[in-house]
Amino acid sequence: MSEYSIDVRITPREGLLDPQGKAIQGALHSLGFDGVTGARVGRLIRLRIQADDEAAARERVDEMCRKLLANPVTEDYTIEMDREAEASR
Amino acid sequence: MSEYSIDVRITPREGLLDPQGKAIQGALHSLGFDGVTGARVGRLIRLRIQADDEAAARERVDEMCRKLLANPVTEDYTIEMDREAEASR
Repeated sequence: MSEYSIDVRITPREGLLDPQGKAIQGALHSLGFDGVTGARVGRLIRLRIQADDEAAARERVDEMCRKLLANPVTEDYTIEMDREAEASR
Repeated sequence: MSEYSIDVRITPREGLLDPQGKAIQGALHSLGFDGVTGARVGRLIRLRIQADDEAAARERVDEMCRKLLANPVTEDYTIEMDREAEASR
């Protein structure tokens, strides 16, 4: 049983309105940051989880995303092992 | 002038309370996901930005983080070029 650090990135689906992203884009323009052509805001969930191996950890987190963390209708998610955290353990 | 896709991950600093993370950890336990030893919730901001080159894009985004996107007292951030988006342009 090892402990893994996993980042889940949850983003609003392409094509869906993202008012928070629009607000950030507007604020950046007001501050003089031209050249920003898009901004979308999502959530980052950093989990520490005990599992037998990396594949098992990833599968558990995928199940968590489907059951609780992400809204499958409006959001996409990606799961990513945090290698640096592993290395520094 | 090229367009770059950049992900900014903003997380609460280690040691600071993260009630949202605690709530997620509790909810996961309630759903039977044992083995979750930590959960922290941050923001993911996905930007599209026009810049002369990759280094310039990254520097602009770093400035945006310091001026608007992240709270330097309570949050850490990392900036990451989205290579997949580059490849698929």
